[in-house]
Amino acid sequence: MQSLHLTNRRILLNARPQGAPQASDFRLERSPVPAPEPGQVLLRTLLLSLDPYMRGRMGSAASYAPPIELGAVMVGSTISRVAASAHPDFHEGDLVCGASGWQDYALSDGQGLRTLPHGAEHPSHWLGVRGLTGFTAYAGLLNIGRPQRGETLVVGAASGPVGSVVGQLALSMGCTVVGVAGSEDKCQYVRDELKFTQCLNHHHPELPAALAAACPMGIDVYFENVGGATLNAVLPLLNPGARIPLCGLAAQYNADGLTSATAQGPDRLPQLMATLLRRRVHLQGFIAFDDFGAQFPTFFAAMGDWLASGEMQVREDTVVGLENAPEAFIGLLQGRNFGKLLIEVAGD
Amino acid sequence: MQSLHLTNRRILLNARPQGAPQASDFRLERSPVPAPEPGQVLLRTLLLSLDPYMRGRMGSAASYAPPIELGAVMVGSTISRVAASAHPDFHEGDLVCGASGWQDYALSDGQGLRTLPHGAEHPSHWLGVRGLTGFTAYAGLLNIGRPQRGETLVVGAASGPVGSVVGQLALSMGCTVVGVAGSEDKCQYVRDELKFTQCLNHHHPELPAALAAACPMGIDVYFENVGGATLNAVLPLLNPGARIPLCGLAAQYNADGLTSATAQGPDRLPQLMATLLRRRVHLQGFIAFDDFGAQFPTFFAAMGDWLASGEMQVREDTVVGLENAPEAFIGLLQGRNFGKLLIEVAGD
Repeated sequence: MQSLHLTNRRILLNARPQGAPQASDFRLERSPVPAPEPGQVLLRTLLLSLDPYMRGRMGSAASYAPPIELGAVMVGSTISRVAASAHPDFHEGDLVCGASGWQDYALSDGQGLRTLPHGAEHPSHWLGVRGLTGFTAYAGLLNIGRPQRGETLVVGAASGPVGSVVGQLALSMGCTVVGVAGSEDKCQYVRDELKFTQCLNHHHPELPAALAAACPMGIDVYFENVGGATLNAVLPLLNPGARIPLCGLAAQYNADGLTSATAQGPDRLPQLMATLLRRRVHLQGFIAFDDFGAQFPTFFAAMGDWLASGEMQVREDTVVGLENAPEAFIGLLQGRNFGKLLIEVAGD
Repeated sequence: MQSLHLTNRRILLNARPQGAPQASDFRLERSPVPAPEPGQVLLRTLLLSLDPYMRGRMGSAASYAPPIELGAVMVGSTISRVAASAHPDFHEGDLVCGASGWQDYALSDGQGLRTLPHGAEHPSHWLGVRGLTGFTAYAGLLNIGRPQRGETLVVGAASGPVGSVVGQLALSMGCTVVGVAGSEDKCQYVRDELKFTQCLNHHHPELPAALAAACPMGIDVYFENVGGATLNAVLPLLNPGARIPLCGLAAQYNADGLTSATAQGPDRLPQLMATLLRRRVHLQGFIAFDDFGAQFPTFFAAMGDWLASGEMQVREDTVVGLENAPEAFIGLLQGRNFGKLLIEVAGD
């Protein structure tokens, strides 16, 4: 393996976060860029996707995926340019979607790489609206949420990459759609651009009353992608037979279980269980690719059509520079991003 | 309407319970027995079923059924003898299954009454194993629990009318079945008579460790019919893709929501949600007749066969005398019954 005499910047997990991640939990390291051996391809990262699930992978707790080792490169989905290839299926200059993680360059044996068509107009969409977040919205909504015409759906982080797709899909299916978002700017965007029926600021001092007013017919589907206070406001409004797809809990990812400050009483579990029983609610945690992966090709094609027709609006929040990924990620967990958060690692 | 010069004892809701029901929440009243008008039938109660759901009906909170009015007769399923009939479909001496409630006699227009076949050997089974509790076990297990051969199922109140049926059905489907019950006597019965793989006393000081030892392959189905501590022990053991049918929360029925003593911290809700997400768990509250009522005839026939063949063991706990119903019901909520609780209101 020879070096190309280039430098690869890699952002490593330096320490497991105690609560919210800090800059010191990450470490930037430089190393030579290796050349591909036979059967390998060298990828130059153009775009890196930052997503809340990464917080879980930084901890040591059992999760749906193994934790990142201390000192290992932070994981993440990427769009890359093939910089050099010793693999028959990939050619220099190809754009590929893969999982190189938080680094400038990565070697791959081709496993899990998908080649983008030449001239693909929005490569970034493969990381979001036509990728993990879009598919999470689609799969959870159709398989668990199962919205019916005339029903009311509530979704949090409504301007974000999951919430925005959930809401737009539910609107197209004839639902009343109420979003919850973290600022007035975001709410305005959700109402004006995404055309949700209503959007409430989750900092609203009277969120339960505001949500009740926005949902006069009760709530049939609550798409849970945030955790936190919204669920408290939703519970009393759930209609019999309501469905709750559960795909994320970003607001509590920084908590460390029952010992943390967020676990102070009152204990809301009995109330939750009583509501689920009395209203006969279906609550289901899911990981889109694990549970519904076979539906991905159908989703990918359909989403392509929705995007082409302008039926699906997308907002991206792009931060330039790999070195800014830790700060951007810390902000993501605080809701500071506005749209799908991407790191532009290289221009082309 | 003429009187038959008989006395009807009726047990009324005297006060809405604060926490656990007390004897003073009930009132026994005597009134003349009315004669049936045309289209009516007079029923003499033989057996009354007591079930935990009645606690919910005694409160004023919104539930899946309207509350019992103060001063009204306590509700309940019954086996009755037709004492007098002015209805073409019912004849004096017929045995019927209905919902006369906690009283010696009731008038009915025939709605919802089912006539037992002549010579039916176990009329009491229509109130339990072939009735509400058996169907609850069957419908929740098959539709939500969906146990597969080789999987591990855990069920609470394992000697009770729901848990015992859940466990026996799961055994017949090739599962490892671990029960949890409230005394050593009950555990012994569950192991020796019902042939569960294991049964643990829920008063065990190290229930989480004991449950972990009893479930070396983790837990695939947790049938939640109790509420309380068992769920805490179950959560860390849930396998990916686990299912939790939720049909009852007897242990918390006496709690009055977040203001009660049981709602003190820590707040277990975030931990529950995180587990449901990471393990991709399907948790669903259900009311058997509301959600799966169309399956009742199939169930009723199949359960008849299982009982006839001896494949399904049944234990009943029969208390003699309508006047003892309040005390028996108070004990039911404390787990003092051992088997399906019935009140023998009249001998024949």
